[in-house]
Amino acid sequence: MSDTGFAKTPKPPYYAVIFSSRRNRHGEADYAAAAERMFELVQQQPGFLGAESARDDDGFGITVAYFDSEENIKRWRNHTEHAATRERGKREWYEHFEVRVAKVERAYNGP
Amino acid sequence: MSDTGFAKTPKPPYYAVIFSSRRNRHGEADYAAAAERMFELVQQQPGFLGAESARDDDGFGITVAYFDSEENIKRWRNHTEHAATRERGKREWYEHFEVRVAKVERAYNGP
Repeated sequence: MSDTGFAKTPKPPYYAVIFSSRRNRHGEADYAAAAERMFELVQQQPGFLGAESARDDDGFGITVAYFDSEENIKRWRNHTEHAATRERGKREWYEHFEVRVAKVERAYNGP
Repeated sequence: MSDTGFAKTPKPPYYAVIFSSRRNRHGEADYAAAAERMFELVQQQPGFLGAESARDDDGFGITVAYFDSEENIKRWRNHTEHAATRERGKREWYEHFEVRVAKVERAYNGP
């Protein structure tokens, strides 16, 4: 979601919210606008560290958002506009999704 | 990486290896064959719980592999053929990658 696609995260520990989803074929323009708005909003959230996202042509995608703490993940979860958009997503845009909240313990990069 | 794209994971806690990468434009057939072979191998590993993967048209991708323990993540890391393929990936296929190892603490799904 940065210029390069990679989140610039600090040294662990921190938290990852792994959101795996399969889109239906509906509402592409609305979905894209909502995704952009959510990314704009999350960047203003306390403790947000970055996000990464990829989606296959067939509609299966993974977004990982990084936060400094569980407390700030919950704060984002309770954000009014985010909650409303999530409900719309459940009704209109996703066939299925999985959310996993995980504590990042170690990290490295390459090549 | 299942029929639906979603990993069927048990109740937390378990571990996630989040691999974010940007492919270069080279070696598509070799890369695809190696990715398929690695998926075949990892399914035989002790403690492997499943994997999910998505890649954008522009070459940015996220793969998340789930394991039951850090011990079995390290065992897979030390697997001879996997290690050789990783080294080839560093030389030939990736502009950049990030690996984050995280403990999944809670999970839910929808809609």
